[in-house]
Amino acid sequence: MPSPTAGRILSIQSHVAFGYVGGKAAVFPLQCLGYDVDVVNTVNFSNHSGYGRFGGSRATAAELAKMFELMEQNGLLLCERLLTGYVPGAEALAAVKDLAIRMKQKNPELIYLLDPVLGDSGKLYVSPECIPIYREALQYSTVITPNWFEVEVLTDTKITDPASLRKALRVLHETYHVPNVVISSIPLKVWLRAALPSSAQPPHTTNTDADFLACIASSTEGTPGSEGGTAPSAVHARCIPCLPGYFSGVGDLFSALVLGHFQPAPSVPSSSPAPSGEAEESPLAYAVAHALSKTHAILTLTHEHAKDLPEDDRLPTDEELDAREPERKVRRMRGRELRLIQGQDVLRGANKTEYFRMVPWTGFWDEP
Amino acid sequence: MPSPTAGRILSIQSHVAFGYVGGKAAVFPLQCLGYDVDVVNTVNFSNHSGYGRFGGSRATAAELAKMFELMEQNGLLLCERLLTGYVPGAEALAAVKDLAIRMKQKNPELIYLLDPVLGDSGKLYVSPECIPIYREALQYSTVITPNWFEVEVLTDTKITDPASLRKALRVLHETYHVPNVVISSIPLKVWLRAALPSSAQPPHTTNTDADFLACIASSTEGTPGSEGGTAPSAVHARCIPCLPGYFSGVGDLFSALVLGHFQPAPSVPSSSPAPSGEAEESPLAYAVAHALSKTHAILTLTHEHAKDLPEDDRLPTDEELDAREPERKVRRMRGRELRLIQGQDVLRGANKTEYFRMVPWTGFWDEP
Repeated sequence: MPSPTAGRILSIQSHVAFGYVGGKAAVFPLQCLGYDVDVVNTVNFSNHSGYGRFGGSRATAAELAKMFELMEQNGLLLCERLLTGYVPGAEALAAVKDLAIRMKQKNPELIYLLDPVLGDSGKLYVSPECIPIYREALQYSTVITPNWFEVEVLTDTKITDPASLRKALRVLHETYHVPNVVISSIPLKVWLRAALPSSAQPPHTTNTDADFLACIASSTEGTPGSEGGTAPSAVHARCIPCLPGYFSGVGDLFSALVLGHFQPAPSVPSSSPAPSGEAEESPLAYAVAHALSKTHAILTLTHEHAKDLPEDDRLPTDEELDAREPERKVRRMRGRELRLIQGQDVLRGANKTEYFRMVPWTGFWDEP
Repeated sequence: MPSPTAGRILSIQSHVAFGYVGGKAAVFPLQCLGYDVDVVNTVNFSNHSGYGRFGGSRATAAELAKMFELMEQNGLLLCERLLTGYVPGAEALAAVKDLAIRMKQKNPELIYLLDPVLGDSGKLYVSPECIPIYREALQYSTVITPNWFEVEVLTDTKITDPASLRKALRVLHETYHVPNVVISSIPLKVWLRAALPSSAQPPHTTNTDADFLACIASSTEGTPGSEGGTAPSAVHARCIPCLPGYFSGVGDLFSALVLGHFQPAPSVPSSSPAPSGEAEESPLAYAVAHALSKTHAILTLTHEHAKDLPEDDRLPTDEELDAREPERKVRRMRGRELRLIQGQDVLRGANKTEYFRMVPWTGFWDEP
């Protein structure tokens, strides 16, 4: 008998009419993977903010709370998985956090992927009042997918070397009780490159570090690391080739794919295209590798598309010229929207792509 | 060089967090067919109204107009196709109509599927002020998909026999200049059954009329009907087996699939599974046959799923018992949500299904 709650995800994040960020980057990929996705829109905007010109409406905390209440009354909060992304403002965020708590209480097996959308590259783009709310929500999460800056903000730790990276991860796991942390798209600084296990490093043929980004996954669950029982977590890492220019919605797509591929029971048969004979991947390493591989394939499609556009639609980023002629930026943004629809066979796993297997970071927790 | 406007649809209709009506029934199928779909939500509700308990927010006319203005300023209204469904209230509907006019002016080749959501089974569920706005919008449409009652309301014609049916279709084509009219899910009344061409009728093995619904498609374009040059349109019809009970969102799914499969140039290579050797289908007949076939396959999946649910989740409709115990209805509704995700291979055309080819209704326009 089919279960009414099998394969169901509640996604709470932003909506844009045009293009692929927030829910528009997350929902379709999850549907392609076979999930019924319930969709609560925290904002309804015309397009993402990168266009310069954008607008629409924001759901208030009261509207969100009312929506969740109605869904609860109708027995529609039975999903096994929860995905939360951008929520506008601290009050609305508190309503989402309260929902996550209720859902976790009702179903302790809830798989909650929390993407703590705070900012990027040293800049907050939500109110600072959101920070303590996210910190409180962390304990209910199964997986979090912060970027580098968000890890620094949440843990109040400037990450500048292996010791501060260890400290930040320890705070997330031990102070905030997050079982699984994934940090993707990390700029490959010299110290980080030097610290990475050699098999996780970019191939030697590449001269410039700027061509690669690192991804780190740290899990207190699943396969024990080679560190034995004393390390706070098993850490995996991988470098991925970085495509030129900026694409919006990549983090939202990646987080959705991590959730979609996360199978908490390690005994679940793996459809991994990794060569047989290799060691079984941990649930987090498996999910992250699939998410990295598919995200990279979609970005490659998007990049290929963008570079074939007329020259006017792919002018390089130039803040001065963009400010003088806003259409310049709009045209560039339009041409760089993710090619999710054209890449749906990739999302579904029907088109095989390069597999970025995560590499165990042996000795990560060892003090030098 | 890929065109930035190829295969793009703007969908303007309702959004529900849980389940599949409005945009949730339309967008995913169109994405599966390879369209980039831009999505403007006219309402953001928890679930469809059939649950009894539902709520959320409605976009105001000003919010919709502002959204369209921003999209226009950003050059994001270049899509080739427009799909409009439920819009709450006359003012908001007028904003959508104004957008359709602007889009049609900018691009006379725009393919606009207008679903004039007014009501069903003799009951209006929008304000009567919406009627003249829909009438004005009709002239900008390429295809409309009213139900039987909506045809009566729009044409101010009670349809009770072949003559009144001819009159209503003539009003839509000639007074309101609609090139393509599709009326689906028509109860198979005795006069209609008698009037249908024999090859469009249900198989003789079936005794009860209630097991079938009729679908009529009438087009002033494409392959000329056998009526010659004097008939207002070429009419096709088909009966489809009717599954027991009520399913929500079926009309929204059907309209989306008609738009998705509508190829205005008859020379476009057809991927129709119809036996080769038969006459080429007109663009409308082709689109409607595909939409009927896929919708029927999804309904069959949904019906199969619903009948395997625990008994409490599939109690039959009983207004008295439902009123006494609202949860009864909620459970029934939950179990009958369309199985779009599970049926995505059907939507995509990867799983072959029974093909409901439309039958030319020769002599439709002949007065007796």
